[in-house]
Parts: sequence; structure tokens; C-alpha cells
Amino acid sequence: MNTEQSLSESGIDEGPPSMPVVLEQLARIVGAQHVLAGQDVSARFDGWPPITALQAACIVRPRTTEEVSALLAYCDSVGIAVVPQGGRTGLSGGARAREVDVALSLERMSSIQALDRDNATMTVEAGVPLALVQQAAEAEGLLYAVDLGARGSATIGGTIATNAGGNRVLRYGMTREQVLGLEVVLAGGEVISSMNSMLKNNAGYDLKQLFIGSEGTLGVITRAVVRLRPRPATTATALIGARTFTDVLHVRERIAADTDGALSSFEVMWPELIDAAVATGRHRDPLSERHAYYVLVEVAARDADQRLERALAAAWQEGWVADAVVAASEAQAGALWAIREDSPARSAALRPALSFDISLPPSAMESYVEALRQQLLRQWTHARTIVFGHIADGNLHVSIGIGQGDEAARSAVGRVVYELLRPLRGSVAAEHGVGLFKREYMDVTRTMAEIDLMRSIKTHLDPRNTLNPGKVLDVAPASRDLAI
Amino acid sequence: MNTEQSLSESGIDEGPPSMPVVLEQLARIVGAQHVLAGQDVSARFDGWPPITALQAACIVRPRTTEEVSALLAYCDSVGIAVVPQGGRTGLSGGARAREVDVALSLERMSSIQALDRDNATMTVEAGVPLALVQQAAEAEGLLYAVDLGARGSATIGGTIATNAGGNRVLRYGMTREQVLGLEVVLAGGEVISSMNSMLKNNAGYDLKQLFIGSEGTLGVITRAVVRLRPRPATTATALIGARTFTDVLHVRERIAADTDGALSSFEVMWPELIDAAVATGRHRDPLSERHAYYVLVEVAARDADQRLERALAAAWQEGWVADAVVAASEAQAGALWAIREDSPARSAALRPALSFDISLPPSAMESYVEALRQQLLRQWTHARTIVFGHIADGNLHVSIGIGQGDEAARSAVGRVVYELLRPLRGSVAAEHGVGLFKREYMDVTRTMAEIDLMRSIKTHLDPRNTLNPGKVLDVAPASRDLAI
Repeated sequence: MNTEQSLSESGIDEGPPSMPVVLEQLARIVGAQHVLAGQDVSARFDGWPPITALQAACIVRPRTTEEVSALLAYCDSVGIAVVPQGGRTGLSGGARAREVDVALSLERMSSIQALDRDNATMTVEAGVPLALVQQAAEAEGLLYAVDLGARGSATIGGTIATNAGGNRVLRYGMTREQVLGLEVVLAGGEVISSMNSMLKNNAGYDLKQLFIGSEGTLGVITRAVVRLRPRPATTATALIGARTFTDVLHVRERIAADTDGALSSFEVMWPELIDAAVATGRHRDPLSERHAYYVLVEVAARDADQRLERALAAAWQEGWVADAVVAASEAQAGALWAIREDSPARSAALRPALSFDISLPPSAMESYVEALRQQLLRQWTHARTIVFGHIADGNLHVSIGIGQGDEAARSAVGRVVYELLRPLRGSVAAEHGVGLFKREYMDVTRTMAEIDLMRSIKTHLDPRNTLNPGKVLDVAPASRDLAI
Repeated sequence: MNTEQSLSESGIDEGPPSMPVVLEQLARIVGAQHVLAGQDVSARFDGWPPITALQAACIVRPRTTEEVSALLAYCDSVGIAVVPQGGRTGLSGGARAREVDVALSLERMSSIQALDRDNATMTVEAGVPLALVQQAAEAEGLLYAVDLGARGSATIGGTIATNAGGNRVLRYGMTREQVLGLEVVLAGGEVISSMNSMLKNNAGYDLKQLFIGSEGTLGVITRAVVRLRPRPATTATALIGARTFTDVLHVRERIAADTDGALSSFEVMWPELIDAAVATGRHRDPLSERHAYYVLVEVAARDADQRLERALAAAWQEGWVADAVVAASEAQAGALWAIREDSPARSAALRPALSFDISLPPSAMESYVEALRQQLLRQWTHARTIVFGHIADGNLHVSIGIGQGDEAARSAVGRVVYELLRPLRGSVAAEHGVGLFKREYMDVTRTMAEIDLMRSIKTHLDPRNTLNPGKVLDVAPASRDLAI
């Protein structure tokens, strides 16, 4: 928007300026010490797992929304692409930059500006790590509902830009449902301040929805107002062993009904995950026999123990539970979660792990996983697969080892994972976003009309393709394409 | 989108065709018996309360998405505006049409296409009444979470187009949070089929969010996939009397904490609402004394009675409850709700009632209501005010009587209601939408940058201002303005 004006004002129309000129201009905006180049760039990784060194012409670290606005207006006017970065814990390549891009790190915009206990809202800058948001809420007896393994590094802005899911979606919804207000800077530098703090606000289009989950391609999120919840008094955790996937679905239904809104996690693990964890020597199998399926259940409520035990007893009587252990202490609950969260154990077992994040109807999961295993084994005779996920949300995480970890391997395995989803109209990106790696499979999940409309909105809001180009969508090159 | 093409194909560029020609073309698309004109139009009302007869050149009633697409493509190409209509129960004039507009009723697209019990989703056409969606879910032991007084007439499509709230937002969120997939027809006739049925799907921009709550100005909703929930086993209802608004806030906090996710309604009523209900002779005051505030509380869970009684006992001991009655039967619970839902009682007391739907932080409500009463009395010495609302959601409904009910009166009273919200950054449209009546007050709630961006999106998706023109936004007249 208004790019023509900026362009003509800049007086530059014969191609982008040289990088020293760009660095000097950026230094004027944010201060020279906040424009990093050379080794300060390459010492960082560009995503998770941390194997690829960050490439970028520089990292620019603004302190204020005004600085973000000024640097975007400048970059947009001279045709330099900008890649917004939070904690760089994404798995989809959404924060990956090219050598000619400016990486925009929100790390200095990291203050919690307000916590309104009475109205249960928090106002935060985008660069605050998720864990600090959680802790600030906890200090006031409240809960910020999103939780995920990368909580220490992932930023609130990054989780909003990717609409992160995590362990408690079942009860509280994804990040989208926690965001009340948002401040966003558009490609041309316009600041859209939509810092609503009310639960209900139908005054016009709900613009923030457009930016949540758009992975930095439509605007840079600078601030947010998030919703806080009452903090459940106690938590009860159990690990269940089940004989069949149908039994798992029955257990889910029974526990959801009997715990009445207090079920916060229902994590299913195929037995290979337990095997991989036990093989490290860091964990012991909490159940005495091996089971076809394991379910990690968490109930959070004032009387969580009673509710979970009542529900488990009912599921046991109905014959859907083969074995179960209820954590008798926080330490025991932590040990159960540690099995689920030990992603190095999976990497070690699969050497390396190629990881995928998909959605499909729970009723189709069992046959999908079976078909996936068979097809992988046909192509790679030593293929190994570890499956786990938030099945009540329809979300599976699939980790696959074929003895290779390069982009070609990921691409070849990805083809199998995603193509099998096509007849199920599953999603190739459940809670991790599309980034760079899943772009070519968007049509598994979305119709061409949908993708065309996304592209049309992208081009309308960012006509020169300045913001995170090539992520989510393959947009036609801008007039000054910088692709290398 | 693509309007130039449609326009040139139509071969018409010297102004809109005559209405007989338009009716004939529409009849070719949907069948002559489904193009209503004359008395068949004026016999309908255009909103709630049912006082204004519908104006429109005709009502067209398509049966399929393809027919919606064809008729929009035609109207867009010849410059005829289209006003989508559901159950016409909205309070904001969103379904009001002009004499030159085509009213597009979704009433024949009224089938429930699928109910997937295992995955807890329902696929519906837009014209299905909300009550039928609720009943279909109930028949399978599930719950469609949105509920509101107009359930018998309001359509699922209308509730999605306005992001309806209602009585259970506290627990389940607004309509937005119930919608998984959406099929929408754009102004030019393009069908965007986004019939996702998964809880988690981050594959690209979440386009449906753009159309939910856009009040028919960006696209016509033709079908949806909605989320269903486990149905709570039992419901417990109580009416509480409280001495101060601070006590009400304390009661809210105590009950929310002690019922652990099972609190489904927390409706506060100022005493004038009880007075108005009792004055009709249809209700008796359930409490023996008059109180400063009344709260209707509903808990839905397996052990709802126990939970509510435990929470009430705690709030009583803490001194925040002056009196309370717990419904001993469904009939008694129904009688308590009937007081809250008796809007004719309020109309009778206020002769007529001018109704407003606003949001503000709960902590600011008491002083807002006091200031509002004083300012109204300064302007109208006989002004009477009845306040009630979903206060845990930050949402108040304000009904005001000044002895006049025309548009001038509504506008003058509205100015007082909305201007007092400005310093609080409250919302002029909490759960009812902007429609026609609140358009001029959007800037109380939204920044100019937000409104400009809304306008930019509207113009991008509907360049000829074909869809519900003048609603939500005052968009610059299209090339062929039909304003009368």
C-alpha cells in the first residue's frame, strides 16, 4: 500500500542500493550496534533442528514499533526483502533468509507492558519468550493457555505469526483463540494498531485474524493483547496402555465426558516412541508390558485427581484400558511428560528424524499410519517410523528415519506423508505452519480457489513481495526480484 | 475480482438494465417461482424488532451454491447490489435493503448435509435455522455451542456472517470458534470452497476468518462445517442477589474457579430488568427482597448441582452473596431464564426500547452505567434504562426508553451510549454486528488505520460494491452508485 509514493519519494528507481548503503540506512533507523552482520549472523541457526546457519545480509534489531515501521518503509521502497524472526524454533523454514535479505529480529522488543488482573489480559511486545508470558500470568494466579516444548526460546510474536498449537489446544484452543488485540506493521510501514482487549468485539472486520498464522508474509507483529484464564488448582496425570486404536477413541470419549471440561491433554504415542525413549537409558517404561498404544492424559481442575480416577475407573470397567499408572507426585508426572517431550531420543533412534505435522480425522488415523508405514517400507526397506500426537485435535506428529537427513530425503519422504493425506483432505500443516518446506503441498489441503485468494490478498497487502517472500505462497516475483 | 471481464462479456456498459430485465435474468437462474416481488417482499420485515417492512426490488431464493454464484456474477456485471439475508433477526440493520437492491435469501439452502459423530462435526447449508442445528447435534448426544434468543428464526449462515455470541460464550467462545470450514461466494461469483473439518489447520491463511463477522459485505456464506462438543450431562441454575458490583465480580471469580471450566452462563441483570418482568404479571420475583444486582448462573457438567452448590456456599461465606435461589427442577430453571429472555417485558416498560449492545472491561462497567444514566437524564428527564449482559465476556446490553422510537431518537440516544465508550476504548458492537446503525461510531472502537484497511480489503474483494453496500463500512460509491 502506498508503495508508489514511497518509491517516488525515495528518488531511487534504478535497482536496489548496494548493501553498504542499506546497512548505513538501517543503522540510522535502529542504531549501528543493532545492525548485525558477518559472524554475528552466521553464528545463529535459522530454524529447528539447529543445523542450518542463518544466512542474511544483516540482522536488524529494532526497539520500537516506530523503528519497525521506518525500516520496513525503507526496505520496501528500495526493494529489499525482510524476513521477520522470533525465537527461530519453527520446523518449516519460515524464518529462513537468503543472503540478500534483511532479517528482522524482534528480540529487543521484549517487555511485558501491562498485566490487567481484573480483566485477565496481558499486553506484550512481540519478542517476549513464551515462558516469560506464562510465568508473568502465573505470578498473578492466572494462566496463559498455550504451551509447547520450545517455550524457553519461542516468542509470543512467533507463536502468533504461526498460530502455534501445543499441549493444551484440546481445552483452550490454539494461539488464535488467545489473541484479543494485535499491532502489526504492513510492508510499506503503515502501523495497524488493533490493540483490542475485549473478549467480544464485532465492530467491523476482525483484522487481526488475517495476520495470525500468516507467518510474517502479510505484516510484522509488534505487540499483542492476550487473554488469560483462571489457573486450575491442581493437575492429575496418567499414562494409559491400550490394545487397539478404537479403544483409544473410546477412552478419549469417556474421559472427556467424565472430566467435564477439565481434560487439558490427551497425547497418544505409538509404542516405538516409548522404545526410543527407554533405549536412551534416560527413562524407564512406566507400564510393565508393551502396549499397542499409550495415552498421556492430563486433567486440570480443583479436584483433578478424583475426576481422573473416576473417569479411568469407568474406562477400565468398560474394557478399553489395558493398563494405567496415575502419577502420585509432580515428579512422577514430570517423568511421564519427559518421555513425550524427549525429541533427542527420537532423533537418536531415527538418525536423523525427518519430522512432519499433519491433521486428519481421528477416525482415519489408524489406517493412515498403517498405509504410511507400508509405503515407506516399499521405498526404503529400513525406514522406521515414530508416531505420536494430539489425537483429540486430529493432529499427528510423524517422525521418520531413512538414514538420510538432507533436503532431498525430506522432500522424498514428505511426498509419501502428504500424498496419502490427499484423499482424506487432511492438512499438511496442523500447528507448525507452511513456511518453505510445505508450500508445494498446499493443494493437498486447500483448493486452487483458496490458494488464488490467498495470493490475491498477499499481493494486495504487500505488492512488492517485501515481507518474508516465498514463504507460505509462491507469489509471482515482484518487479525487483532478488531471488538467488 | 474479474469484474472487468464479466462486464465486457455482458456487453452492457450504459447503466443497469431495467428491473423487468433483471427479474427475467434472475428467474432464468433460480426459476420464476423463486423470484418474489411486490407483496411477497413487503410482507416480510427487514430486521428486529419487526417494525420495518422489507424493501427490495425482489427476493431471490437460490437452492444451490451454483445458483448463488450465477446470480452474483450477473448482478455484479450489471451493477445491481445484493443484500444477503438469513433469518433477519439482527438488530443493526444489516439485512435492510433499498428499493433497487436484490435481496438474496438463503431460506431454500436449508439441509443438514452430514453429521459426523466420531469426529464431532456437522456440515450444513447456510439457511438452516440455528435451533435445527442444535437439535440435530442433540439427537447424537452432542452439543452445538452457540445459543441465543432468536434460535428459531436465526440461520446458521446469519450467525456466522455476524459472528453471533449469545448465552454460552463464556465457556465455548463466539460463533467464530465453532466454525471449522466455510464455503463462500465472492461478489463476482467465484466460489471459495474451504470446507475444512479439522480442528487444526495452519496450511496457509485462514481465509474463513475474513468472512466470519463481515456481515455479508465480502462474500455470501453458502455452507459451513461446524464443530460439535460433548454434551454436558446435567445443568444447574441459580439466581443470585448481590449488594455491589464489586461483589458481583468477586462472585464471578469464585464460581469460575470452583466450577472448573463448567460455568456456561453468568448473566448479570440490574434490578430494573426484574421490575419490568414482574410488572407484566408473567413472572414473580424469585428472591424475597430487591437487590442492587442479580446474577443468573448456569453450570453444565456431570455433577453440576454439587459444583454450583459448593461454589455458592464459598461465595456466601466470603460475604459476596446477599441472597440466592437454586432451581430445583428444569421448570424452575426455565422460569429464571424466562425473566432474562422476556424482551417484550422490556419493550413494554420502556415504550419503546432502544437497544444497544456494547463491550467494555468489566472493571469499568459500574461507573459507565452510572455516567450513562446521568447523562441520559440530563438530556431526557424521563429517560429509563434497563441494563443486563454477559458481564464475564465484557458485554452489556442496554435498553433505553425516552418515549420515542424513531431513527432520530435511536441516533440521539446512540450518541450518548457510544461516546461514553470512547475513553474506555469499548466496542460499539459486541455480538450483534455493525450493520447500518453503528457504522458512524466505528471510530469509537477502531483506529482510522484499521478502518482504512477494512475499506481496502472490501474494495479489493468487491470492487463494484455489489455485496451489502453501505453496511459495516461507508465505502466510496462504486462507478454505478444506486443510492436513493
